[in-house]
Amino acid sequence: MTITFADISAQLATQAIELPSWAFGNSGTRFKVFSTPGTPRTPQEKIADAAKVHELTGLAPSVALHIPWDKVDDYAALRAFAQDHGVDLGTINSNTFQDDDYKFGSLTHTDDVIRQKAIDHHFECIGVMDATGSRDLKIWLADGTNYPGQGDIRGRQDRMADSLEKIYARIGENQRLVLEYKFFEPAFYHMDVPDWGTSYAQVTALGDKALVCLDTGHHAPGTNIEFIVMQLLRLGKLGSFDFNSRFYADDDLIVGAADPFQLFRIIYEVVRGGGLNNPDVAFMLDQCHNVEDKIPGQIRSVLNVQEMTARALLVDGGALKTAQDAGDVLGANAVLMDAFYTDVRPDLAAWRESRGLPADPMKAYAASGHLAKIAAERVGGQQASWGA
Amino acid sequence: MTITFADISAQLATQAIELPSWAFGNSGTRFKVFSTPGTPRTPQEKIADAAKVHELTGLAPSVALHIPWDKVDDYAALRAFAQDHGVDLGTINSNTFQDDDYKFGSLTHTDDVIRQKAIDHHFECIGVMDATGSRDLKIWLADGTNYPGQGDIRGRQDRMADSLEKIYARIGENQRLVLEYKFFEPAFYHMDVPDWGTSYAQVTALGDKALVCLDTGHHAPGTNIEFIVMQLLRLGKLGSFDFNSRFYADDDLIVGAADPFQLFRIIYEVVRGGGLNNPDVAFMLDQCHNVEDKIPGQIRSVLNVQEMTARALLVDGGALKTAQDAGDVLGANAVLMDAFYTDVRPDLAAWRESRGLPADPMKAYAASGHLAKIAAERVGGQQASWGA
Amino acid sequence: MTITFADISAQLATQAIELPSWAFGNSGTRFKVFSTPGTPRTPQEKIADAAKVHELTGLAPSVALHIPWDKVDDYAALRAFAQDHGVDLGTINSNTFQDDDYKFGSLTHTDDVIRQKAIDHHFECIGVMDATGSRDLKIWLADGTNYPGQGDIRGRQDRMADSLEKIYARIGENQRLVLEYKFFEPAFYHMDVPDWGTSYAQVTALGDKALVCLDTGHHAPGTNIEFIVMQLLRLGKLGSFDFNSRFYADDDLIVGAADPFQLFRIIYEVVRGGGLNNPDVAFMLDQCHNVEDKIPGQIRSVLNVQEMTARALLVDGGALKTAQDAGDVLGANAVLMDAFYTDVRPDLAAWRESRGLPADPMKAYAASGHLAKIAAERVGGQQASWGA
Amino acid sequence: MTITFADISAQLATQAIELPSWAFGNSGTRFKVFSTPGTPRTPQEKIADAAKVHELTGLAPSVALHIPWDKVDDYAALRAFAQDHGVDLGTINSNTFQDDDYKFGSLTHTDDVIRQKAIDHHFECIGVMDATGSRDLKIWLADGTNYPGQGDIRGRQDRMADSLEKIYARIGENQRLVLEYKFFEPAFYHMDVPDWGTSYAQVTALGDKALVCLDTGHHAPGTNIEFIVMQLLRLGKLGSFDFNSRFYADDDLIVGAADPFQLFRIIYEVVRGGGLNNPDVAFMLDQCHNVEDKIPGQIRSVLNVQEMTARALLVDGGALKTAQDAGDVLGANAVLMDAFYTDVRPDLAAWRESRGLPADPMKAYAASGHLAKIAAERVGGQQASWGA
Repeated sequence: MTITFADISAQLATQAIELPSWAFGNSGTRFKVFSTPGTPRTPQEKIADAAKVHELTGLAPSVALHIPWDKVDDYAALRAFAQDHGVDLGTINSNTFQDDDYKFGSLTHTDDVIRQKAIDHHFECIGVMDATGSRDLKIWLADGTNYPGQGDIRGRQDRMADSLEKIYARIGENQRLVLEYKFFEPAFYHMDVPDWGTSYAQVTALGDKALVCLDTGHHAPGTNIEFIVMQLLRLGKLGSFDFNSRFYADDDLIVGAADPFQLFRIIYEVVRGGGLNNPDVAFMLDQCHNVEDKIPGQIRSVLNVQEMTARALLVDGGALKTAQDAGDVLGANAVLMDAFYTDVRPDLAAWRESRGLPADPMKAYAASGHLAKIAAERVGGQQASWGA
Repeated sequence: MTITFADISAQLATQAIELPSWAFGNSGTRFKVFSTPGTPRTPQEKIADAAKVHELTGLAPSVALHIPWDKVDDYAALRAFAQDHGVDLGTINSNTFQDDDYKFGSLTHTDDVIRQKAIDHHFECIGVMDATGSRDLKIWLADGTNYPGQGDIRGRQDRMADSLEKIYARIGENQRLVLEYKFFEPAFYHMDVPDWGTSYAQVTALGDKALVCLDTGHHAPGTNIEFIVMQLLRLGKLGSFDFNSRFYADDDLIVGAADPFQLFRIIYEVVRGGGLNNPDVAFMLDQCHNVEDKIPGQIRSVLNVQEMTARALLVDGGALKTAQDAGDVLGANAVLMDAFYTDVRPDLAAWRESRGLPADPMKAYAASGHLAKIAAERVGGQQASWGA
Repeated sequence: MTITFADISAQLATQAIELPSWAFGNSGTRFKVFSTPGTPRTPQEKIADAAKVHELTGLAPSVALHIPWDKVDDYAALRAFAQDHGVDLGTINSNTFQDDDYKFGSLTHTDDVIRQKAIDHHFECIGVMDATGSRDLKIWLADGTNYPGQGDIRGRQDRMADSLEKIYARIGENQRLVLEYKFFEPAFYHMDVPDWGTSYAQVTALGDKALVCLDTGHHAPGTNIEFIVMQLLRLGKLGSFDFNSRFYADDDLIVGAADPFQLFRIIYEVVRGGGLNNPDVAFMLDQCHNVEDKIPGQIRSVLNVQEMTARALLVDGGALKTAQDAGDVLGANAVLMDAFYTDVRPDLAAWRESRGLPADPMKAYAASGHLAKIAAERVGGQQASWGA
Repeated sequence: MTITFADISAQLATQAIELPSWAFGNSGTRFKVFSTPGTPRTPQEKIADAAKVHELTGLAPSVALHIPWDKVDDYAALRAFAQDHGVDLGTINSNTFQDDDYKFGSLTHTDDVIRQKAIDHHFECIGVMDATGSRDLKIWLADGTNYPGQGDIRGRQDRMADSLEKIYARIGENQRLVLEYKFFEPAFYHMDVPDWGTSYAQVTALGDKALVCLDTGHHAPGTNIEFIVMQLLRLGKLGSFDFNSRFYADDDLIVGAADPFQLFRIIYEVVRGGGLNNPDVAFMLDQCHNVEDKIPGQIRSVLNVQEMTARALLVDGGALKTAQDAGDVLGANAVLMDAFYTDVRPDLAAWRESRGLPADPMKAYAASGHLAKIAAERVGGQQASWGA
């Protein structure tokens, strides 16, 4: 490697990955949601868990909330609670998929009353943002249909555009709306925002403060995700990432777990396109720890992103360009692979220690006894999950 | 068409499609399970709903049970209840995916105590079969792992073989074990029975009373399902179908809804391979009516199978063989398409009436006011769902 | 059905589907290209074959050319030849994938000399258009890479934008540029125009005379193609279709052969979105008759489109809207399925005869002895294929 | 890592990966086959190229032949030629996809004359094996159909069984028949051997000397290939690998290029199941170097397999089992990932030098000027490709 760890550590030092509060609650499949001891019961406990991840890694300075799962009476107090724990409140995620009214759609519904209810929910979320100091309103729509003919997919698209316009009009000066797309699930015939093209067309119609959110698990099989990253950066419309990984569908596994090389390529394109440590491009996790422990699951996740960022930064851009321009296919590929196969873990461990962090945050967490402690403390009550 | 409806009606007259009791309960996704008025609260109410489908279609003379969802104290009484309503109890489906003990496996678990518990559950199911007079024990295993390394996939396969052997040893003279395979979900890295090859290898090791269950929604994208139907019939190992349809993953939509032509091709291979009206090959539904009404959803489903069977029976085998042997690609394909595009609905309607059934069972059900009636009656209690 | 054939025949009467000249030449896979007797050897013979399809169906009044495969000295003479045979010359397709210079790209190449050569080729194509009276220049780019790192995918996108701008500047007042996208092949890591979003972003940057071409075989597994049709019509950017069908990848089978219901849904959205008989939306075939006869293969194809258009026009829009607005999932779906399952073939046959066309163009062609005639005539010379 | 490089080097020392002669010829897609200077024109030149790979890596002691592409008058002489160059002749690959007679099938054809011709071709291949001393006859069948109805898929399966039986009867005492499966291409509706289950059922019917060949590029999207490796090893039927990699379909890219972690998991299961350095399990490449140089492409490929084998051997089996049995999902996964992320390249380089090989075979080849030398020498004649 021509580029050394010393060359890249400054860029690593400013990396921040937002954690989703719901990753600390129970999750599962339609078949079963397994519970685990120590699972948080309140937004505060979720935030405390997220803060633990940040404490050990220095990588996760903010926590995204999901409304109504994280509804509280006093958001200013929640913000103070978070800051006391060393983290900020981040993106506000709306939810229009768990109310019976939304069975056939929310922002796309044919019934204006229900559609307005969904719009109002987003107004409420903007209110929360004002109280928490959050910048981003993230909209993921479960809207779609299960059977051909069930809905008028064109009319739904038009109504969505209208609803988004109304929501966008309320977005504050320093706030943003990010629109997530998803290939399928929970709808099984069509989703109203199935692909980046749709999200791009919708947010472009809204204005500069509307951007696309790219969830790495929300694509058709075989999709070249790093290409979309490149394209959205090129078009100035990549607002945020929801990181996770998948073998099949929206598996929501730990980022980097299913295909580490894909994560490498994605982050390489982020670097290439100026998206790293760029405040306009938010890094966030969105995962489900169905069978593994949640706090270490999140620690593992941010470390995976950090390690892969280190590898991506090690790519020798000059050598790469030389080989690319010469049509040297094997040589160009080798430049990339050389960085990917470099074991950055020892350097990262030493560097963490130099910054007052544990060399191995996973080991440090296991040794801390923290999991046993919260399991003992958090008895009774209702464990948090997607339901509440 | 050279073949007329009169030529095929005798074969249609004996067609039977088993209904799953759980199709009448609520179902959904990990995001939300919507409830509907009139949803059954007990196994008896589910059976009554299934009987209604049979009453209007003459196609669904039996109901599959799921243990423990359909657990009752007295299975003989349940059987009598069913028969009073004009239907029989059919396949018994085991469930080893909703107990906390099975988080890391059931028949494949490394812990012999848990593994024995799962085996014992199947013994219990065989006991139910003895009481209900059911022939088939259907095993669908949710067993699998979410992360590479999480389990020893070879050891799991060996333990599964051992567990199945123990269960098979209890299968009665006139009973059968059918082993279902599934590509993914709820496990997202590997499933212990992911494909027909694995199910085939496992049941072949057991003996003649062990067969494969083919769920039409449990394959990788693009899989030619009718080829598998052909192959399993050829190998004498196709025990049963779980019919449903899909656009993406295991969507569990109404059979024939997503790709009618695929259903046609599947049933054509059933006919070609001697699987129609063959007691060794059980036709069954396994679907989720997440957003549509359940009883009419099941009526629509059995009608779809019936209509497609009629079309498949209309294929002119002689003309097809002539074209195939001549290398007449377009001619051979045209023979198939001619049958597929034939509108069999008027003939079927007339034939139904001639047998004392409503010409249009969907319309008859809608006109009956039955849905409003059960919605009014079934107030209070806990609506059935996958949970219980 | 509330809507009758009489209600829709006027719309069928004006339907036009362009044929690709290359469909009459030999095609195949990387493993083998099989030849067949009677295959054309010249552009003139291809046009004559296309004219035969139009003669028997009344559906295919124009022929698309591929440059250089259809290069001639005198395009005005070729146009006159076509018109003498009763057809017009249509879309001009450029080719930047068969010259050794384009191994690493054409409009995206890092070498300005090669890139200019590719641009010049499009200028040449525009020259051909001027001579043939063609309206549309269709650009399908094989550009892409096989290995991560092989190319700078961002730089390639920017160079493509620049190249397209130069080409677009030469597009005449009444001409259009349509940009086709493709998921993969011949490049196996990334394609420079892999999805509709990329094509949309690129043509939007160019101007009003630049539009997207949607090839029905160029999507990831499971993609909801009719959604894209809806969206592009909504955005005013659907320029043309390349019809074919597929089970796996870009199989280029006869349109409607692999999934008739998908074709129905696509055409339904065309109708819904105002794209039928709309001069702005060109219907075209792009297929490979690898193992079947070519002229009847094309006849079958245009008939498939016509039959499916008839079914799509039969959809009772009023009943559909009523059911959709009522949340009647099964009812809404049934409206669609009723039209799909209607056998339109007898009405179409009678209507064809009333217009002086054969009732069954496939049978008429077979009876004509035309295939034997051209097989006898076209001896010697070099059969046309993708190579030349 | 508890396991060190010293612990595993003995296992690396005996690793052998067979090279396909055709990888040194030109290949491409249906769109274009690009030629490159220095491409071999004869079987001898291909063998010389393969020998160069072995000379620099010590990993590739044998070369597979493809009949008729590598047809010679005197196979004993060819064997001597190979041995003079330091390599043996290996697997004999039959070809029943390039003769016009096989348009509609070979071992499955309805015409007994054509079917016998295909059987006879395999007899000829067995004759070649006798002369070359090859052990394995590899059968990959392109047989299949493009349209539903085109063939009787059941009859084809039965005829294939009969054909294979006749071929198997001629297989010598120390010879084997391996049957490869493939998901699709060149047939686009059905393949006669589409999946491992079909290959397994067919070879099991033949006998002990018939086994399955697993080509890593021949599966449906998302297929867990290492599971199939595990299963076939468990069933004693994994005869050989065709290594390559893919992003989309059968891309035939360099092994390990598209998804290095998948290659790691595959080799880990080979190790786990006793398939490494097991003479019963042949490692072979089957790739297409469409745009990259061929000899270094093959060097890169065997190095990829070697490096990944080293990583797989570094997995700490004891720690893995402990974590697995404890239900420690993250811990078990970490054991695997630790080995995967270990940079084995420096140890491998030193070890190569200790064995008289270049530390970096890619660099050594580039420095050797060999490519320029053969480009200068190999002028005129017909470059080898899939065609001949």
